[in-house]
Amino acid sequence: MGFGYSGKILHLNLKDGSIRIEEPDEIFYRRYLGGEGIVAYTLLKEVAPGIDPLGPDNVLVFAAGMLTGAPIGGSGRQSVGAKSPLTGGFGESEAGGFWGAELKQAGFDAIIIRGASEKPVYLWINQGSVELRDASALMGKTTADVQELIRDELGDKRIRVAQVGPAGERLVRYACVIFDVNRAAGRTGMGAVMGSKNLKAIAVRGAQRVALAHPELVRESAKWLSTNLERLVGRRKALGTAGCLLPQQYTNSLPSYNFQAGEFADAEKISGERMAETILVDRDNCYACPIYCKRVVEVDNEIKVDRAYGGPEFETIGSFGSMCGVSNLEAISKANELCNAYGLDTISTGVTISFAMECFEKGILTSADTGGIELRFGNASASLEMIQQIKDRTGLGKLLGEGSYRAAQVIGKGSEEFVMHVKGQEIPQQEPRAHHGLGLGYAVSPTGADHVHNLYDQEYTEANSPKMRNVAAFGILEPLPYDTLSPAKVKLFRYEVDWQHMINCIGLCLFLPYEYDRVVDILHGVTGWDLTIWELVYAGERALNLARMFNARQGLGMDKDTLPRRFSNPLKSATVPLEGISPQELQQGIETYYAMMGWDPVTGAPTRSKLQELDIEWAA
Amino acid sequence: MGFGYSGKILHLNLKDGSIRIEEPDEIFYRRYLGGEGIVAYTLLKEVAPGIDPLGPDNVLVFAAGMLTGAPIGGSGRQSVGAKSPLTGGFGESEAGGFWGAELKQAGFDAIIIRGASEKPVYLWINQGSVELRDASALMGKTTADVQELIRDELGDKRIRVAQVGPAGERLVRYACVIFDVNRAAGRTGMGAVMGSKNLKAIAVRGAQRVALAHPELVRESAKWLSTNLERLVGRRKALGTAGCLLPQQYTNSLPSYNFQAGEFADAEKISGERMAETILVDRDNCYACPIYCKRVVEVDNEIKVDRAYGGPEFETIGSFGSMCGVSNLEAISKANELCNAYGLDTISTGVTISFAMECFEKGILTSADTGGIELRFGNASASLEMIQQIKDRTGLGKLLGEGSYRAAQVIGKGSEEFVMHVKGQEIPQQEPRAHHGLGLGYAVSPTGADHVHNLYDQEYTEANSPKMRNVAAFGILEPLPYDTLSPAKVKLFRYEVDWQHMINCIGLCLFLPYEYDRVVDILHGVTGWDLTIWELVYAGERALNLARMFNARQGLGMDKDTLPRRFSNPLKSATVPLEGISPQELQQGIETYYAMMGWDPVTGAPTRSKLQELDIEWAA
Repeated sequence: MGFGYSGKILHLNLKDGSIRIEEPDEIFYRRYLGGEGIVAYTLLKEVAPGIDPLGPDNVLVFAAGMLTGAPIGGSGRQSVGAKSPLTGGFGESEAGGFWGAELKQAGFDAIIIRGASEKPVYLWINQGSVELRDASALMGKTTADVQELIRDELGDKRIRVAQVGPAGERLVRYACVIFDVNRAAGRTGMGAVMGSKNLKAIAVRGAQRVALAHPELVRESAKWLSTNLERLVGRRKALGTAGCLLPQQYTNSLPSYNFQAGEFADAEKISGERMAETILVDRDNCYACPIYCKRVVEVDNEIKVDRAYGGPEFETIGSFGSMCGVSNLEAISKANELCNAYGLDTISTGVTISFAMECFEKGILTSADTGGIELRFGNASASLEMIQQIKDRTGLGKLLGEGSYRAAQVIGKGSEEFVMHVKGQEIPQQEPRAHHGLGLGYAVSPTGADHVHNLYDQEYTEANSPKMRNVAAFGILEPLPYDTLSPAKVKLFRYEVDWQHMINCIGLCLFLPYEYDRVVDILHGVTGWDLTIWELVYAGERALNLARMFNARQGLGMDKDTLPRRFSNPLKSATVPLEGISPQELQQGIETYYAMMGWDPVTGAPTRSKLQELDIEWAA
Repeated sequence: MGFGYSGKILHLNLKDGSIRIEEPDEIFYRRYLGGEGIVAYTLLKEVAPGIDPLGPDNVLVFAAGMLTGAPIGGSGRQSVGAKSPLTGGFGESEAGGFWGAELKQAGFDAIIIRGASEKPVYLWINQGSVELRDASALMGKTTADVQELIRDELGDKRIRVAQVGPAGERLVRYACVIFDVNRAAGRTGMGAVMGSKNLKAIAVRGAQRVALAHPELVRESAKWLSTNLERLVGRRKALGTAGCLLPQQYTNSLPSYNFQAGEFADAEKISGERMAETILVDRDNCYACPIYCKRVVEVDNEIKVDRAYGGPEFETIGSFGSMCGVSNLEAISKANELCNAYGLDTISTGVTISFAMECFEKGILTSADTGGIELRFGNASASLEMIQQIKDRTGLGKLLGEGSYRAAQVIGKGSEEFVMHVKGQEIPQQEPRAHHGLGLGYAVSPTGADHVHNLYDQEYTEANSPKMRNVAAFGILEPLPYDTLSPAKVKLFRYEVDWQHMINCIGLCLFLPYEYDRVVDILHGVTGWDLTIWELVYAGERALNLARMFNARQGLGMDKDTLPRRFSNPLKSATVPLEGISPQELQQGIETYYAMMGWDPVTGAPTRSKLQELDIEWAA
């Protein structure tokens, strides 16, 4: 079938520290592909309905993908998954960096963690050997300090560390898992789950290279990428993800003031261009990647920002910048540093603060609630103070650490109307009114509002755009307007989102400019499997259906597939006004999507025949 | 999108002889691909519910495919379609030869014929020019005579002729359309429809070569085929389609005695091997094909067989041989000659006679009914006499010319129990008990029992078989037993049958040994379109759904998707006994198939969302 891939999954029970190593057969890897696939498979098999996400019955999965650790740009990613304390459903998030590649080099594809430890521990994987170690001395410390302490204790500077910060220890519902101190598996609260298990960190050191079935094919694509780097991703290399900030501003799709606007007057001040001109001191990459899209910033005036924590991504700038009305890039960079140091998801943190600011502006929250902080749009220092409170679980931060959705339930007074979430997870900095398919994607994603498996409709509005060339593989030949959820759009959405779930399975970064064919080719080079686009799209659909099935079992039904009412309002602009997505349009889009997916029209759960088609009838 | 394919469709109204030429855009061709695709598109758009298939409101379509006429083996096929007088639903049948390539070379992809002519006419297409001509002098003549008369009249020996024989003129419900006097678009009674329109023939002469986007790609595959010919299709070349007769005999799957047995004691006497040793005088090919699987036989003793009519295919040998208990290969060849000369489908003719023989053996028909003919199994001369009667519509032949299903309704006395048909069409010589997927295929095909878009389960029972290597493209990696309609089998069935409908769209012979990838490659070479397996499978599914929609509109619902009860009985054998397909197993398979196809579980018609997915919402 291939070159006889054999991999190992490490099972750890924190209740008694017991360890078991599983060696699944090659079909397992071909079917689930790693990453999100292994997460979805494991959670559906192992997590019972109704369990407390922050209790010992939750199962926490770290999984590399079939591509992770291969010597090719984009292969430096890994997934973390568990039942989400934020959504109560399928929790999964990916991060870049070097940890996943190191895990593969240590001989493991995934780690599955059950139970909870009585005392703080960290896991040390040194090649084939596995050890649980005391983490008491690491508790409460920032991520950079912890990483240094672990490396010192184990005497190896090249050790890679995944960890929770103080926010995860204290069960902030959107605490994240931090890798290499500056990459986050940010969404769905995986850091809180890790913290609830008293597992402070996973330190990894490996030395065996990831085996390749056809190294020359992988080399060929690596060469193609470096040759075409400037042409294809020059802007991303120069400006990082923040390069998209001004284009969004110019299209009225830069989320601002808690999604009350799509334009931010000071957009240029927080742009990728401005960053490059001012505080940028270096660029950084993930494993084997030539793009170096990661930013490294340094600030040393009344605000101090430590370069060890990298620099803000676009999503972070949006969440703490335009969403909070903050035009101070140094303050935004400080917010980024704090979130990385404390292990907080920058999106949920920033959007929750933005929500609180709107409450304050509207008099729903007052100085009495904030302990005197003027929590107004544009107040950067108030925002930084809130991060501290959220991490410490003090003051208003105690409530905001539950996430904006739960906070709104407590705050009341109509604040529920403008809490910008889906399934309890805060909405990222992509504007659905500029991409109706993206709005559908927020609504139906198994993880709640999510931007890493979604459709960016604008990229399909012109014939011969790179994305249109890609989807010609599905016989989709005609471009579509951005502001429709027509059946043709829903079909495009289905295939593209399936594909992206597959991308999240194999551990490939979604920013790489590989066309579909090349992904097939690279994965063939790594695994030796004679794959096709067909098999890969349906592998993505398989992972998605498992996640969807997990949600159904945990009680998340069709009623949770929705959007905040705010998105049905138009988005004003002098130059690029945008219509809202009406509830009727969304409902129609959802119904069409369910039907095309083979999901039950009432429950939204996969039908038995869909599971059969995907070779996962066991999930029924 | 490609090289800007532009083609022409000729519209002919026989009521007034008017002619119109349509030039669809390139998207039309890419979506429907020609052949069955254009047939299904046209019938659904143009044929009203409930019309008489043999009346002037029926629409008759001749269509070449996107591959037809390309210089590569397997490209010599064309489709004929109309509402079927046999099934009352979607009628469509393909044939090989040279006519379709000639039509393309004359500048047309398809001919759509409406109305009926008062007087017998034939259509003469000479390059771009089109003319209706008097056919009075051709009526009642054999196909070889007609072809010669037309060529003489028009003064060109290279003219290619499609025609109905006397059986079509006389509206025998399973009359076929004959090409080149020895190729038949045999199934679903298209000859009767053509006869009902008083259209005796379509003569074509073209000289412009079919344009190729990338001739070198087509040449490369042509070269690959000739290089690997012996290895891949040596047996077919040597023995023709009859090469499969003994393998079927040895697996208890040679339909015999009206499907009462799967073994025929005299199988060797009617085998491809025996034919090659005795009456075979030449081999013949279709356009551009190096295989030469067609047989040419000659007999000159008390039985005389004219070599002009070629020789019997396997299906013909089965229908007139083992099914009728006849072991005389010369008599079978005579039956083949007569059917080609008269324009009768050999399968329906042979199986209908086999049915009548069982009636006779059981005393349900008597000498009084047969005019003294001892219509017993094994009586070859009785069989030949019945062909004459069917063509002449005299004696018992008048009734048998209505097809076995309608005959059984008249004969009664329990004969309805053993009439071997689906949707009124006689079952071909492939045994469902040896291929349960094939049984499902007979049941659900839009054309009634059909062997040219079906699953031959035995070919998927061993890992690394050529077919298993093919379906790995769908991520189907594990072989399956032949005697199951498990969900995994139904999934395999769905994709394979979709693919075959696509093959029937592009005009490719199903006997060519091209793997999926190569078909994509060849079609890319011809059209310039960047096709994928994905787009092609879904194009096949599109054609199938249009056909299915046509049936729904004509009143053929789920109740017509069934198998004769005989197939639920076991098939005895000393060495290879076979279990039956129980009604429960079949029902379960059908339900699974509907669900996987996105068809309504009650009506069996495509749902709106399925049509939307296939870009044919107009069909809803």
